[in-house]
Amino acid sequence: MGLEFAIVPAFLFAATGNPVHLPLELLLVFGVAKLFGELMERFGQPGIVGEIVAGIILGPSVLGWVHPDQVLAAFSELGVMFLLFVVGLQVKSSELLRVGGTAMLVATLGVALPFGVGYGIMTAIHASWVESLFVGAAMVATSVGITAQVLAAKGLLQQRASRVILAAAVIDDILGLLVLAFVSSVARGHVNVPSLVMTFAMAAAFTVLIAKYGSAALSRVIPRFEQKLTAAESQFNLALLFLFTLSVLAAWLGVAAIVGAFLAGMALSETVSTRVHDLAQGINELLVPFFLAGIGLHLNISVFAGAATIWLSIGILVAAILTKLIGCGLGAWRLGRADMLRIGVGMIPRGEVGMVVAQIGLGMGVITESVYAVVVFMTVATTLVAPPMLKFAYRKSPRGLPEEKFSLS
Amino acid sequence: MGLEFAIVPAFLFAATGNPVHLPLELLLVFGVAKLFGELMERFGQPGIVGEIVAGIILGPSVLGWVHPDQVLAAFSELGVMFLLFVVGLQVKSSELLRVGGTAMLVATLGVALPFGVGYGIMTAIHASWVESLFVGAAMVATSVGITAQVLAAKGLLQQRASRVILAAAVIDDILGLLVLAFVSSVARGHVNVPSLVMTFAMAAAFTVLIAKYGSAALSRVIPRFEQKLTAAESQFNLALLFLFTLSVLAAWLGVAAIVGAFLAGMALSETVSTRVHDLAQGINELLVPFFLAGIGLHLNISVFAGAATIWLSIGILVAAILTKLIGCGLGAWRLGRADMLRIGVGMIPRGEVGMVVAQIGLGMGVITESVYAVVVFMTVATTLVAPPMLKFAYRKSPRGLPEEKFSLS
Repeated sequence: MGLEFAIVPAFLFAATGNPVHLPLELLLVFGVAKLFGELMERFGQPGIVGEIVAGIILGPSVLGWVHPDQVLAAFSELGVMFLLFVVGLQVKSSELLRVGGTAMLVATLGVALPFGVGYGIMTAIHASWVESLFVGAAMVATSVGITAQVLAAKGLLQQRASRVILAAAVIDDILGLLVLAFVSSVARGHVNVPSLVMTFAMAAAFTVLIAKYGSAALSRVIPRFEQKLTAAESQFNLALLFLFTLSVLAAWLGVAAIVGAFLAGMALSETVSTRVHDLAQGINELLVPFFLAGIGLHLNISVFAGAATIWLSIGILVAAILTKLIGCGLGAWRLGRADMLRIGVGMIPRGEVGMVVAQIGLGMGVITESVYAVVVFMTVATTLVAPPMLKFAYRKSPRGLPEEKFSLS
Repeated sequence: MGLEFAIVPAFLFAATGNPVHLPLELLLVFGVAKLFGELMERFGQPGIVGEIVAGIILGPSVLGWVHPDQVLAAFSELGVMFLLFVVGLQVKSSELLRVGGTAMLVATLGVALPFGVGYGIMTAIHASWVESLFVGAAMVATSVGITAQVLAAKGLLQQRASRVILAAAVIDDILGLLVLAFVSSVARGHVNVPSLVMTFAMAAAFTVLIAKYGSAALSRVIPRFEQKLTAAESQFNLALLFLFTLSVLAAWLGVAAIVGAFLAGMALSETVSTRVHDLAQGINELLVPFFLAGIGLHLNISVFAGAATIWLSIGILVAAILTKLIGCGLGAWRLGRADMLRIGVGMIPRGEVGMVVAQIGLGMGVITESVYAVVVFMTVATTLVAPPMLKFAYRKSPRGLPEEKFSLS
C-alpha cells in the first residue's frame, strides 16, 4: 500500500501488521471500482469497464497504491466463483443442453482459430516453437465472468444467444484444459497420450453428468436434508456446501473452479428459494468488484519498453478479438447474423484464464517476460473491449422482447 | 493444507500454486464448521460453540489439516466486521445512548478488575513487571463478536441487557486501547502522557460523534446520494462504502475496525431498507464461520508441555471469567440480578482481541512463548464457555416477552 499514516499509534503495528491495511484496501478497491463504474454508466458505457479501469489506475501502471496480493487474489477468485454461481442459479440445465450442438461448434471453432493464429503470429516473428504454442494456448480460454456479469446486469441471461455463450464457455474451458495439457507436455518433452485422454474424459464426464442429472438429483436431496436441519438459513448453507464441493471437484479435475461454481448454480436453479438468490447476491455485490478491479491490477504498462513489444501487443490483441469473433460467430451461423455477432463478441474476454496459462509458461521458463506482458495486456484489453461491444450487439434485443421459438436437437 | 491429491494434473501447479487450494480450504472450514454447529444444536448447545470447535479440530491441535494463513485471517476479519455491521443495523443509537451511564460503569469495572487480577496473578508467580502488565492488558478487551452472534441468532438484540452489553463493549474497546497504549509505553520505557490523552480523546470523540449524530446525518445524506446514482443496488453499495470508511477511521484511531463497523451499522439502521439487511446477511452467512473457526485454529495445545503452564492456564482462565462476571455484573447492579448475570456473562469472551494484545507483547519480546500460549488458551476458552452461559442467563427472557419499561439518564 502506497499510503502512509503518520498519526497512527505506532505501537499497534509492532507485532501484528497494520490493522488499517485490510479495511483500507477494501475501501480503496471497492470505492474506486464503484466510483469508476458509476462514471462509466453516466457516459453510457457498461459499469464493468469502469471497475476494471479502477484496478488499472490503483495498480502499478498508474498510482501504485494497491498491489496484487494473496488476499486480493482470494477475494477475486471467490468473487468470480459467486458470480458464476448466481448466473447458474438463473439458468435451467435443460435450456443449456438444448443448445449443446451449436455450443459445441462455437467452442471448437473458437478454440482452433485463436490457437492457430496465435501460434502463426509468434512463429512469424521467429519466436521458439514452444513459446508460440503457449501464446496460442493463452489465446484459447474464454473467461466467461466478464460476459456473464454484463448479461446478468442487463437481464439478458434468458436470451438464446446468452445460453449458447454460457454452454460454449463451459465446453471451451474443457477444450482449453486439453490444449494446455498438450502444450505443457510438449514443453516437457514427453506427450503422454493416454494421460491426456484420461484428463479430458474425466473433465467432460463430470460436466455432462452434473449438467444432465444434477438438477433432478438435487431437487430430491436438498429438501430432504433441509427438513432434518435445525440451524437457520439451512438451504443457503447447503447450497454453499454444494458450490464449494463442485468447485473443488472441478479444480481437481483440471477445469476452472468457476465451471464447478456455474454447474452448482445450475443444478440448484430449480430447487432453491429466492432467499438463496438474495443472500448469494449480497456476496456478489461485495466481491465481484475485487474480481473486476483485480484484472486491471495485473496490468503493468511500464514493462512495454520497446516499440517491438507494443506492436506485438497490438497484433496479438487484434488477433485475439477477431479470431473469437469470427470463429465463434461462424460456429453459430445457423442462428442468424444478430446471434452470430452476440455470440462472437460474448466469447472475446480472456480475463484471468489467459493470465494463468501465461504464468504457467513463465514458470516453466518457456516464455519470456516481455511475451508474458503481451499476453497480460491482451487478457486485460479483451475484457475492456467486450462489454461495450456486447451492449451494441444486444441493442436490438430489448429484455422485454418475447423470444423466438427455437430448438436444436 | 495437509491433504494430498495425487491424481491432479501436475502441470497445473507448476507456476500458479494449487488451484484446488482455495476452494478446498473454503469447503473444509465452512463444511466442518456447519457440521459441528448442527451437531451442537442437536445437543441443545449454541451452534457457535461447534463452529469454534471445528477450528480446533481442523487446526494444529488435532488434525493439522488447516493452518491459519493470510487469506483465512482476512476472511475472519471481514466476517467479524460484517457480523458487527449487521448487529449495528438492528440497533438504534438512541437506544444505546439511553443505557450509556450503566454501560460506562459496566465497562470501567470490567476493565479494572481483569487488569488488576491478571497483573496480580502473574506477579504472584514471579513473572516480570512488564509481562504481568501485558497479561493484565490481554485480559481486558472483550470481543463482542461471540456474544453478538449468539444474541442475534436468538433474536435477543432488543433486550435491555443486550443493549448494555453492546454499549459497554464499545466503551470497553476504547478503555482497552488506553490500557494497551499505556502498557506498551511502559514496556518501551517512556510514557508520553499527552500522546496517551490524545489517543484516548480522539477515539472517544469519534465514537461519541458517530453514535450521537451519525444516524441523523445519514438519514439526510444517503437518500440524496441514492437518487443521483444509476447503478444497481446503490443503497447497499453506499452502505458498504460507509462501513469500510468507518472501519478504516476506527482502525486508524487505534480502536478495533469492528467498532467502526458496528457504529456504521447503527448509523445506517434508521435509513436503509430490508434489502440491505438481506444482502449483508448473505455475506455474514458465508464469512462468520471463518471468524468462528478461525478462533479455534489459533489454539495449539501441543505447546502445553509442563504442568506449571497447565495450572497457570486454568488459573488465568478462571480469573478471566470471574473478573468479567463480577466486574461487569456489579456495574449493572441497578438493573437487577437477571440482567446483572446476562451482562456479566455477555462480556466474558475475549476472542481475537486478547490474542492481538498477546501478539504485540510477544513481538516486543516482553512476554514468553509459554505465556503467549496461556493467553491464547484463555481467549479461545472464554469464547467456548460464554455461549452456553448466555443461553442459560437469557433463559427466563423469551424473545416474545414485552420489555420492561426502563430509562436511565
